[in-house]
Amino acid sequence: MDIIKEIKDAIEKAIENYLYEKEPSLLYDAVKYLPWAGGKRLRPLIACLACEAVGSNFIKAIPFAVALELIHTFTLIHDDIMDKDEERRGMPSVHKKFGENIAILAGDTLFAKAFEVASSIRNESIAKEILKSLAIMAKEICEGQEMDVRFEKLDYIDENLFFEMIEKKTAKMFEYAAMGGAIIGGGSKNEILALQNYGRNLGMAFQIWDDCLDIVGKDIGKPIGSDIREGKKTLLYIYAYKNSENKEWLKIYGKENANDKEIKEVIKFFEDIGAIGYAKEKAREFALKAIKSLNELKECKAKEELIRIAEFAIERRK
Amino acid sequence: MDIIKEIKDAIEKAIENYLYEKEPSLLYDAVKYLPWAGGKRLRPLIACLACEAVGSNFIKAIPFAVALELIHTFTLIHDDIMDKDEERRGMPSVHKKFGENIAILAGDTLFAKAFEVASSIRNESIAKEILKSLAIMAKEICEGQEMDVRFEKLDYIDENLFFEMIEKKTAKMFEYAAMGGAIIGGGSKNEILALQNYGRNLGMAFQIWDDCLDIVGKDIGKPIGSDIREGKKTLLYIYAYKNSENKEWLKIYGKENANDKEIKEVIKFFEDIGAIGYAKEKAREFALKAIKSLNELKECKAKEELIRIAEFAIERRK
Repeated sequence: MDIIKEIKDAIEKAIENYLYEKEPSLLYDAVKYLPWAGGKRLRPLIACLACEAVGSNFIKAIPFAVALELIHTFTLIHDDIMDKDEERRGMPSVHKKFGENIAILAGDTLFAKAFEVASSIRNESIAKEILKSLAIMAKEICEGQEMDVRFEKLDYIDENLFFEMIEKKTAKMFEYAAMGGAIIGGGSKNEILALQNYGRNLGMAFQIWDDCLDIVGKDIGKPIGSDIREGKKTLLYIYAYKNSENKEWLKIYGKENANDKEIKEVIKFFEDIGAIGYAKEKAREFALKAIKSLNELKECKAKEELIRIAEFAIERRK
Repeated sequence: MDIIKEIKDAIEKAIENYLYEKEPSLLYDAVKYLPWAGGKRLRPLIACLACEAVGSNFIKAIPFAVALELIHTFTLIHDDIMDKDEERRGMPSVHKKFGENIAILAGDTLFAKAFEVASSIRNESIAKEILKSLAIMAKEICEGQEMDVRFEKLDYIDENLFFEMIEKKTAKMFEYAAMGGAIIGGGSKNEILALQNYGRNLGMAFQIWDDCLDIVGKDIGKPIGSDIREGKKTLLYIYAYKNSENKEWLKIYGKENANDKEIKEVIKFFEDIGAIGYAKEKAREFALKAIKSLNELKECKAKEELIRIAEFAIERRK
């Protein structure tokens, strides 16, 4: 069977099995709402492929992979509350559907569940290392989200600060996914480092591409231009700010009730000034770095798939 | 030196040292705001005393003890958002001072920090067991909080359901504190079980007494009668509901803008009907059970202090 399908099936089954709780039903309906609604499962997939790529069986990485997906979901739920995003994956966001209190609690519960699940890793030494990694990762994601929320209110931020923010908010999780998978698989120091670099660069590419999709993309499960309405400091914004003399567009950027015509104006402006091209080029650079990091690994099916994921990260339409 | 003072000093120092992060400063100001503002440190104290009571040195339990305090603080921050409580320990609550977004993130960060800190337990086997316990405990606290929030909207709940709620919301943490301390200290099965029972019963007594303090107490750091305004389903409410024919008082219970005179009316009614006496008696029963559980342990200074804490739980004025 196709390894991707095999891993994805195992992940879906494990997510269902690990979230066995039923009561209190309102809480667990909210807890399961996003994890059971599908998704790309990119982070658990990378963890499992990294485990295979160092010569082990991905099954060993499943508890860790599920823990990653649960932490990812927990951050989505709390981020949507903070960003007042009412849609997620084409459905009402958790706080929209269940109310803000239950959404806060559902996020907290998923966070706790992630550690419960990860603690089922058999090897005690590896379990301890992985649990510590997950904790530090989650902390860094919180730091990145705080920067993201704070940057919304600033006129301009330096590109390096922007990269620091997306590294913490997004790339760290890809980094830990690949690194953790390699650790669980018993990879060598060099293999672990190679996969760590792969993950971080992939995560950077992924986030920058995501910001482009918000402007030009389709099917991302939330309205196009929501970054513009929220005043998000994306790489496109930073480039446009640095390179535009006429800053009329700033009157729309961050305007919560901007109409579709205004949104289109900003998008057109971003295209004309080359902001979209610049961001796509940066995403491409990171993806190439990610692929290059894998040179350290022996040729195998899992490595091929990791390369394919890096290519997908900068081609996808959703 | 007095063992309590010695443990408390070690806990304060460890809380300061473990929360070493400085940037992003807004986030970490919010993260440190409550943990560094003092408090009874009851849960870490119990963990350390349990470790001593089974014949070990409390220093071994410090990472676990700090993790407990951080999780406790995390739940306070998120609970205050949900309950719209604007005061905590006589200061503005975190969301009041830093805004709701930062409060959500500060709670999440403390949760992550707790697992980071607990993962510094040296022994790998014990570290794994403790981390798993903390995850399951946190999950159960979320379940208890969900019940508490949901019960606010109900007219009446059964006393057993109420006990289930406070067991999850409050008593579990005391249970895990005592149990974890005993595990870290290398206690026997019987000792661990005895301390687990001690913790759970103590936690029940503690929460019931807390609900009484909201009605009659002083110095709890938030306005008296806030449970009445919020419509909290406490043991006092349940007793009064079951035993009153005239339910005029329900017009005030849960009335957000009830004035002080109305609050006093309900308090007087709770006194007259015997609700306060009933709740205090229940708290006393649980505290006695807690003390009795300790019969299993050898006589020692730490055991004496654990008994004193159970006595304090049902005498305290704050």
